[in-house]
Amino acid sequence: MEASDKIAMVHKYVEAFDKQDMSIIREIYADNAKVEDPVGTEPHIGIDAVCAFYEGALQSGAKLSLTGEPRCSGNAVAFPFQVIMPGATIDIIDVFEFNDAGKVSSMKAYWSGDNMKTQ
Amino acid sequence: MEASDKIAMVHKYVEAFDKQDMSIIREIYADNAKVEDPVGTEPHIGIDAVCAFYEGALQSGAKLSLTGEPRCSGNAVAFPFQVIMPGATIDIIDVFEFNDAGKVSSMKAYWSGDNMKTQ
Repeated sequence: MEASDKIAMVHKYVEAFDKQDMSIIREIYADNAKVEDPVGTEPHIGIDAVCAFYEGALQSGAKLSLTGEPRCSGNAVAFPFQVIMPGATIDIIDVFEFNDAGKVSSMKAYWSGDNMKTQ
Repeated sequence: MEASDKIAMVHKYVEAFDKQDMSIIREIYADNAKVEDPVGTEPHIGIDAVCAFYEGALQSGAKLSLTGEPRCSGNAVAFPFQVIMPGATIDIIDVFEFNDAGKVSSMKAYWSGDNMKTQ
């Protein structure tokens, strides 16, 4: 998988939030994907559980803004971004791991309440 | 382990490069630590292999500069930084995982040549 394909997936992910478009989430993730957000909490396993998680996130109206360039490495990409919500932002780092079909098989989101700023 | 302790370890890591001080590296890492830098390459396993890797890195004179706040999550911390070398910089994201003794048991560095800028 080319680095440009991984970075395109990061931009699609941002677009899914911009457009509140669940079809993009379904396109990004593998059927057996595992999403741990934030790391240290119970993961969402399988595309149905993953989509249930994102339905809430997308409906909240949160938007994502990259705060540095994506770092492609091995079968993964790590990227820093800010979640922008009404009245608050959170600084997060996500790590996507890709399967051989180019779908995201694992997502880990690193953040805690300490990374939230209220306005 | 408190978030403040994890963040202190990140700052110690930066200090190890600033001072070219291998004793800080030995203090940070667990005896059975695994370092994969960059992700996708053969990991350095065990404190001796880890130290051999850092001896070269510290001697190169490279310095680290954080480019965003560390994100603590579960037993981990992810942080974005820039490696500053003579004539070049690299944008990297590192993920430290800690063991119960508060030592780094796993380090993964996400970057590729695409994240290097020459001056």
